[in-house]
Amino acid sequence: MKTNLKSFQPVVSRSSVEVRYAETDQMGVVHHAVYPVYFEQGRIDWLRIVGMHYQKMEDNGIMLPLHKLSVDFKKPAKFGDVLTVTTILKKMPSASINFNYQIHNQDQDLLTEGETVLVFVDKTTRKPMRCPEDVMNLILKAATKD
Amino acid sequence: MKTNLKSFQPVVSRSSVEVRYAETDQMGVVHHAVYPVYFEQGRIDWLRIVGMHYQKMEDNGIMLPLHKLSVDFKKPAKFGDVLTVTTILKKMPSASINFNYQIHNQDQDLLTEGETVLVFVDKTTRKPMRCPEDVMNLILKAATKD
Amino acid sequence: MKTNLKSFQPVVSRSSVEVRYAETDQMGVVHHAVYPVYFEQGRIDWLRIVGMHYQKMEDNGIMLPLHKLSVDFKKPAKFGDVLTVTTILKKMPSASINFNYQIHNQDQDLLTEGETVLVFVDKTTRKPMRCPEDVMNLILKAATKD
Amino acid sequence: MKTNLKSFQPVVSRSSVEVRYAETDQMGVVHHAVYPVYFEQGRIDWLRIVGMHYQKMEDNGIMLPLHKLSVDFKKPAKFGDVLTVTTILKKMPSASINFNYQIHNQDQDLLTEGETVLVFVDKTTRKPMRCPEDVMNLILKAATKD
Repeated sequence: MKTNLKSFQPVVSRSSVEVRYAETDQMGVVHHAVYPVYFEQGRIDWLRIVGMHYQKMEDNGIMLPLHKLSVDFKKPAKFGDVLTVTTILKKMPSASINFNYQIHNQDQDLLTEGETVLVFVDKTTRKPMRCPEDVMNLILKAATKD
Repeated sequence: MKTNLKSFQPVVSRSSVEVRYAETDQMGVVHHAVYPVYFEQGRIDWLRIVGMHYQKMEDNGIMLPLHKLSVDFKKPAKFGDVLTVTTILKKMPSASINFNYQIHNQDQDLLTEGETVLVFVDKTTRKPMRCPEDVMNLILKAATKD
Repeated sequence: MKTNLKSFQPVVSRSSVEVRYAETDQMGVVHHAVYPVYFEQGRIDWLRIVGMHYQKMEDNGIMLPLHKLSVDFKKPAKFGDVLTVTTILKKMPSASINFNYQIHNQDQDLLTEGETVLVFVDKTTRKPMRCPEDVMNLILKAATKD
Repeated sequence: MKTNLKSFQPVVSRSSVEVRYAETDQMGVVHHAVYPVYFEQGRIDWLRIVGMHYQKMEDNGIMLPLHKLSVDFKKPAKFGDVLTVTTILKKMPSASINFNYQIHNQDQDLLTEGETVLVFVDKTTRKPMRCPEDVMNLILKAATKD
């Protein structure tokens, strides 16, 4: 595959999440610890769109635990808000895979931005591993299509 | 073991749980879905006091999933409340084990009552099984001591 | 409104919920404390379909906290399952409103059944109140339509 | 108060948290979204030790929502682990207050490091405000004692 001739385009997915009552706290807004769960949902949708099913990856012996997480809280989400989680991959994975996230509400307000670094881990040995080649190929295909 | 000569005494444990901010919802009180987690903590402490470590049971191939749950919500718990979870076993387990729970706050108000039925499940086959004999013996010992 | 001439038909809604990774536990299935959250989502959708927005009810000073909950766990849900939450009202509310729930997976297996009793509470006084008349009328309309 | 003559010492608290079963996921370890809740518990204990009760602050009209969060996951925590959350304030707050966190398990393994930036918000106007003077004084007292 002559990938050097094509430029890497960010691969972007959008997921819709409706805020649950249980996710609010006594400030009357979504508790901050819920946003990593929204990011996770966005990431799982992203993987599916690119052609990977996270459960199948685990069934095949590959886990993707979080290594680093950062979140920037700009405005609060409220019960009943219909959020859009935008998940973005900006560069090819290696031993780790980095995603950026933006969460907007139904009024297109940017509520939250975040970033995660996940690492590929062998389920049996629990040791780090490189991104499997079939995953690389799926991402390359998504990132270089015309 | 001549257990028929001794009467079965309810086996009771008490656990202390401080309400977390993340457990509140926008009504300003603990969200109802958190109480099963408090019951679970009470149950795990109960098992430990009787001599069973839940993780060791799982490591030995026995799981204890929930079969039935009921909760009666009387008064709300609030952020910062220091709750006492009272966990009670009233009768010997067989294929299932039943616990009753009461949750009081620091003012001795009864906030919640509940009941769970758990079943013993073989971790490998995921089939129901009878309560293992060593567990029976530990409970019998706790329930019949003078 | 001559409601006595019409029979009360159960009012049923169906909601779709995809199981999140964060909702699993180390047994590899959805943790039991998540099901009340699924029921809540079903209930909020039910209210919306009948014409009530839960947030508007709270904004108008009416809260609907849980009074009783029971859950019967039949089969486990797994990560990635797409669940259908069926929410059923079988009789008119008074000071309380009762819902029944069934949760099926994508293979039409019945995973969980449940029931909740919720009470109408005045947000300011935090005292119980009767079901507001406009809510009664919306339910009556949904339950008696030809 | 002649604070310029005393050097600011980091103010450190330690909290003990036992990992709950419900906090694990199907990888068999604590789900990453639980760590911000552990940090929160550490922070609330820190405030209490210094002389502030978070609920009282809210009752007095001051909220402390999260503005930024970062977490570095080094090793996983497991069900039943007894964690120590170390919460550290390294500099005086202004409009925001920064905490650093370290989480160790019972074997003194460093599992997680994190940092949060919280902002002081007026509960009524929901606008940012400066750290209240009584809070400043409590922190100064804790940070400069011999």
